[in-house]
Amino acid sequence: MKKSLIALAALSASGFVMAQSSVTLFGVVDTGVTYVNGADNWSGMTSGNNSTSRLGFRGTEDLGGGLKAQFWLEAGLNTDAGDGASGGASGTGLEFKRRSTIGLQGGFGEVRMGRELTAAYNAASRYDVFGTVGVAQSRAWSQGGNQIRINNMVSYYTPSFGGFKAAVNYGFGEATQSRDGRYFGASLTYDNGPLSLGLGADRLNAGGNAAATQDITAYAVGGSYNFGAAKLAAAYRTQENKLGGAAVDRTAYLIGLSAPVGAAGEVKVSYNRYETEVNGGADQKADQFGLGYVHNLSKRTAVYGTYAYIKNKNGAAISLGNGGLDDGKQHAIQAGVRHAF
Amino acid sequence: MKKSLIALAALSASGFVMAQSSVTLFGVVDTGVTYVNGADNWSGMTSGNNSTSRLGFRGTEDLGGGLKAQFWLEAGLNTDAGDGASGGASGTGLEFKRRSTIGLQGGFGEVRMGRELTAAYNAASRYDVFGTVGVAQSRAWSQGGNQIRINNMVSYYTPSFGGFKAAVNYGFGEATQSRDGRYFGASLTYDNGPLSLGLGADRLNAGGNAAATQDITAYAVGGSYNFGAAKLAAAYRTQENKLGGAAVDRTAYLIGLSAPVGAAGEVKVSYNRYETEVNGGADQKADQFGLGYVHNLSKRTAVYGTYAYIKNKNGAAISLGNGGLDDGKQHAIQAGVRHAF
Amino acid sequence: MKKSLIALAALSASGFVMAQSSVTLFGVVDTGVTYVNGADNWSGMTSGNNSTSRLGFRGTEDLGGGLKAQFWLEAGLNTDAGDGASGGASGTGLEFKRRSTIGLQGGFGEVRMGRELTAAYNAASRYDVFGTVGVAQSRAWSQGGNQIRINNMVSYYTPSFGGFKAAVNYGFGEATQSRDGRYFGASLTYDNGPLSLGLGADRLNAGGNAAATQDITAYAVGGSYNFGAAKLAAAYRTQENKLGGAAVDRTAYLIGLSAPVGAAGEVKVSYNRYETEVNGGADQKADQFGLGYVHNLSKRTAVYGTYAYIKNKNGAAISLGNGGLDDGKQHAIQAGVRHAF
Repeated sequence: MKKSLIALAALSASGFVMAQSSVTLFGVVDTGVTYVNGADNWSGMTSGNNSTSRLGFRGTEDLGGGLKAQFWLEAGLNTDAGDGASGGASGTGLEFKRRSTIGLQGGFGEVRMGRELTAAYNAASRYDVFGTVGVAQSRAWSQGGNQIRINNMVSYYTPSFGGFKAAVNYGFGEATQSRDGRYFGASLTYDNGPLSLGLGADRLNAGGNAAATQDITAYAVGGSYNFGAAKLAAAYRTQENKLGGAAVDRTAYLIGLSAPVGAAGEVKVSYNRYETEVNGGADQKADQFGLGYVHNLSKRTAVYGTYAYIKNKNGAAISLGNGGLDDGKQHAIQAGVRHAF
Repeated sequence: MKKSLIALAALSASGFVMAQSSVTLFGVVDTGVTYVNGADNWSGMTSGNNSTSRLGFRGTEDLGGGLKAQFWLEAGLNTDAGDGASGGASGTGLEFKRRSTIGLQGGFGEVRMGRELTAAYNAASRYDVFGTVGVAQSRAWSQGGNQIRINNMVSYYTPSFGGFKAAVNYGFGEATQSRDGRYFGASLTYDNGPLSLGLGADRLNAGGNAAATQDITAYAVGGSYNFGAAKLAAAYRTQENKLGGAAVDRTAYLIGLSAPVGAAGEVKVSYNRYETEVNGGADQKADQFGLGYVHNLSKRTAVYGTYAYIKNKNGAAISLGNGGLDDGKQHAIQAGVRHAF
Repeated sequence: MKKSLIALAALSASGFVMAQSSVTLFGVVDTGVTYVNGADNWSGMTSGNNSTSRLGFRGTEDLGGGLKAQFWLEAGLNTDAGDGASGGASGTGLEFKRRSTIGLQGGFGEVRMGRELTAAYNAASRYDVFGTVGVAQSRAWSQGGNQIRINNMVSYYTPSFGGFKAAVNYGFGEATQSRDGRYFGASLTYDNGPLSLGLGADRLNAGGNAAATQDITAYAVGGSYNFGAAKLAAAYRTQENKLGGAAVDRTAYLIGLSAPVGAAGEVKVSYNRYETEVNGGADQKADQFGLGYVHNLSKRTAVYGTYAYIKNKNGAAISLGNGGLDDGKQHAIQAGVRHAF
């Protein structure tokens, strides 16, 4: 989607084009209809099924000598009802909770400050063929608290070394005289031709600004290979939540395949396996299947249809959406239109 | 106002104009001073007296073959205090509660999804010469709950057949296993030369997402004729609110006249009659008179002055604003500036 | 910063440039790291240390005959966390609480309506070399309620008469049959070559829309002289809060110096003295020192570092930020990046 963003013509007050200082207005409106067949049938309109609905402003200024200043303000939207649904927050007004950063970029890489996706999340979540949105998305990153986005981060991103890139994030907990809410994360990625690999690790301390109620430590690894006729992707993630003596260990496996169909279509299939162990007790398990088709009407506009099925065992209760689980099971379908601008 | 919207020049990153994919930033800032002479005198600054203050982003993409993708995000503003006053909601932050839609348009008409004005409202409310804003607006659509805008709608708009157009709205209630909050509405309009006619009917079920506390069924019909020297407009609307055995029936009649004065002025007069019958009891009645003048400083900017008077009888308590009714009566005047961009 | 705003190219739907009607998207992203050494050490990420982070839309339309229509919508941002921090309000969603005005400007000056900075504040606060932001800012305007921005104002600004300008603000209290929340303010300024002078006086009645809990009356005077090698600025402000028989009198003195260093640097030093007298009791006193350096990477982008120290006496408790006072004392440092667009 980033490739299809529209750059607004930036003119100075005196009328000449300032090529080095453009501001880009961008966004996505993605709205569809979802039907969930679980304990109760539920149908409704949902936003962000193929790509999260959003509105943003971003820009780059060339400072000379290879140095650039960059800012990025991006807010989530609930396009079914018009309110603002921001990454990780429940506020109803527009907030730049998806990303709110300023950075300086040069030959040394980039230093950024603010709220954004963590490097640990980015490194492995990109191997979910459903892009971690919609009913068939992987729930590997969203069970038992999350470290998808963190406030108050100072981040460093290296340049690419033959396809290798590394990144580190430090998020201030902003708690007086304690480490409450502090976040540490890092990633290592490799992207070269058809092969892509990613490693991520992070740690969020309970309390403070992050509002996490437990210490959370997570590791993830993933990869994909593009065979041309299809792209195969897989990832593994393990997360431990601790509070006092109690511990919950969550493990997720995901594998997916995406393949072009004709000139404008794309088929996606995925399987997710979730395992949860509470204080060393018996494993809760869930298996999730996803099938999707995206038909591109242009580079910016697509219609899509997605089917997902989840089956929980041993007391697991991972849900695809509203409607409630039926003996641990739920089917969901959704169809809609996505437009990026 | 739509005619005066500014289209921002949309350039791709490589510098050429993408004529088929423009994004438009648009809005209205309308602020004025209002004085209400009722039980207590009240004076203050008010927003959206001649046209609702707003900020929006909208765009169209030509997909080829006569097909277009369209999005529209529009938020209400309270320009007297700077907060977001969104259509039908009380949130203080900016929300796209006036309109939040995505649509596909072609020879078949247009299919849209999201929150917007209902077709039933649009069909007849356009015959209020005060545009349903400001102290002299018709209260025909805003007594006892409203169906002006609805969340979660799938809508279909036909193309024009010799001036005739039809539209249907279905709004998901999003309540599990019930019809709570569900909305159905339809309209038929005719616009040809000086003559305009409109019919609207809709039904909103209590509960669910719509937060209506009663089942509401409404019908409206209206028309206008432009004689050149003046335009005469009239409408009738009836609304029944039901909850259990209790029923409230509301009927409104409105008639108005607007006429150009000189090159830049417009005079508007209107009369509204409201009748309310509670559980078959004696009619509550109110008569409302409005007089307004708009002086256009340009196509986008105008100054305006409006006077309104309401007289309630038999226990009716319809108000023009703050300050309280004085023996059922209230006078109000307002003056301000409206600028569209 | 206003000088570096980007004007978006405004095109009509038919493609020609409407030179007389441009809309400008503008903003500031300013994020840094702050360390406060008081009773407890506190460190964290903070927004708006050198210039308040913001996002805005403004425009001017030439109406002919020397008359212009102008609108200005400006929202505050918390760029460390992505939410909206608006001038004087605690809402989390985006709100145009920094400024929300419409105005008509001509040879007579300008008449504006809406929420904005008061003229009394503008006249003297501009002599704080730290721009009333960040840890070293003057607290002269922010102790015991403030009249920095007021809702519902009708304002008149004169044109310049040989460097002299005057302004008056009236803010409706919007309370029925009382003067609660009503605001009156005025300013007189003189700007000519190296010399700048400003006088401001205002009065805010308790209650009503302004949510002030006391009647507040304030006077301020200030001035600056640019010697070339350095600019010297000083101001004095006195504020009386009254409720019933109780009165609190606050007086602030500030003096500062700013000087260019090399082609791109600027050094700033300031001293603030605060005195508070509660019901005629013994003076509470505080002394504050500030030292800052701003290094401009371009006209729009800068890195900065600021140090501040405050020492409270006789029960005064004015703070530089989080962390608590240590025997009335606190040190703070902050460093960050500011980018205007």
